[in-house]
Amino acid sequence: MKNVAVILSGSGVFDGSELYETVISLLAIRRAGAQYQCFAPDKEQLHVINHLSGEVAEGEKRNVLVESARLARGEIKPVTECDPEAFDALIIPGGFGAAKNLCTFAVDGADSQPDEDVLKVCKAFAQSGKPAGYACIAPALAASVYGNKVKLTIGNDTSTAQTIEELGAQHVECAVDEIVVDSDRKLVTTPAYMLAEDILEAEAGLNKMVETVLSMQ
Amino acid sequence: MKNVAVILSGSGVFDGSELYETVISLLAIRRAGAQYQCFAPDKEQLHVINHLSGEVAEGEKRNVLVESARLARGEIKPVTECDPEAFDALIIPGGFGAAKNLCTFAVDGADSQPDEDVLKVCKAFAQSGKPAGYACIAPALAASVYGNKVKLTIGNDTSTAQTIEELGAQHVECAVDEIVVDSDRKLVTTPAYMLAEDILEAEAGLNKMVETVLSMQ
Repeated sequence: MKNVAVILSGSGVFDGSELYETVISLLAIRRAGAQYQCFAPDKEQLHVINHLSGEVAEGEKRNVLVESARLARGEIKPVTECDPEAFDALIIPGGFGAAKNLCTFAVDGADSQPDEDVLKVCKAFAQSGKPAGYACIAPALAASVYGNKVKLTIGNDTSTAQTIEELGAQHVECAVDEIVVDSDRKLVTTPAYMLAEDILEAEAGLNKMVETVLSMQ
Repeated sequence: MKNVAVILSGSGVFDGSELYETVISLLAIRRAGAQYQCFAPDKEQLHVINHLSGEVAEGEKRNVLVESARLARGEIKPVTECDPEAFDALIIPGGFGAAKNLCTFAVDGADSQPDEDVLKVCKAFAQSGKPAGYACIAPALAASVYGNKVKLTIGNDTSTAQTIEELGAQHVECAVDEIVVDSDRKLVTTPAYMLAEDILEAEAGLNKMVETVLSMQ
């Protein structure tokens, strides 16, 4: 049975992992007959967003690992405990948390700095030729991990795509229910909620992403 | 297109709505060609549970509606704004929040008191003969809503089943991937994470629950 590491960035689209993208990805992993283990960085979130108002909850602090545990029913480990040798593939769902807590893309754009512990794990998967799937805005992190004109997508937002190209990637436009595959680097990306207007639209692309990642040798 | 009201109780299995159950239910609603609107009570959670440690986060307070908004990508309304006449069916996912924030079953057992605003909405669906699906521990709330020996399930936990019978329901044992249907009351229940050891197990029963609710006239 293939074993998949999933890196989360909190629990909620505006300050953490997008919930639908994460649950759909976990379902797809299990449906493909593989198993998963969730990880997250043990550090404070960039901020907390009140998901009802959309505003920053001033003065409130939450921990990425503790909140991500909500998406893993408590079964989660710090990303520093992720040994890539124990896994066959890596999946990183989107949500703004991927660009706020796994790297600083949301704040720093083309000067985005990946979280050091996350980068170490992601680089190990890349360098050992193990396949990975990054959804939604998580490809902004992939740009820093792979560089070298790696092919990826965040959908069709011109300004975001240009900033990601400044980080060293080659952006490819992609429909919401499709994926972009860099076969050499074994990187699969899908726009998900960068474009999705509905949970079914997001599901279509995410299912293809997970299936393609798990079909790679 | 059928319109489904979904009542949430927070965002996280230990103090709110179970995330997998909620997302799977929303997917099933859309897959059946129906649409949904999420609601939640605008009040403080019973407590906040640190989902990493499983312990109560002392001194921390969160609002049920604000946290439920994470599960609805911000598209959620107070349960007081739910007009049952505008909907064809009701779905209530499980998670401890259903027994902590929608009623007091987790604390008071056979003396469980439903939240007044939630009860008003649930009763309106029941009294107008509109179908409803309650998953996991949410049938503890259904017992208070329907009473009169309504047939329902929370799986096979003898002590919980007995307490629910003291609330006026008739408990029926049920496998994780199955449902219990009270055809007269148009109530459909499934054990979900009362029994599920895996997201696929929960999905099987939840899909049946949603499909059955939406097939009822």
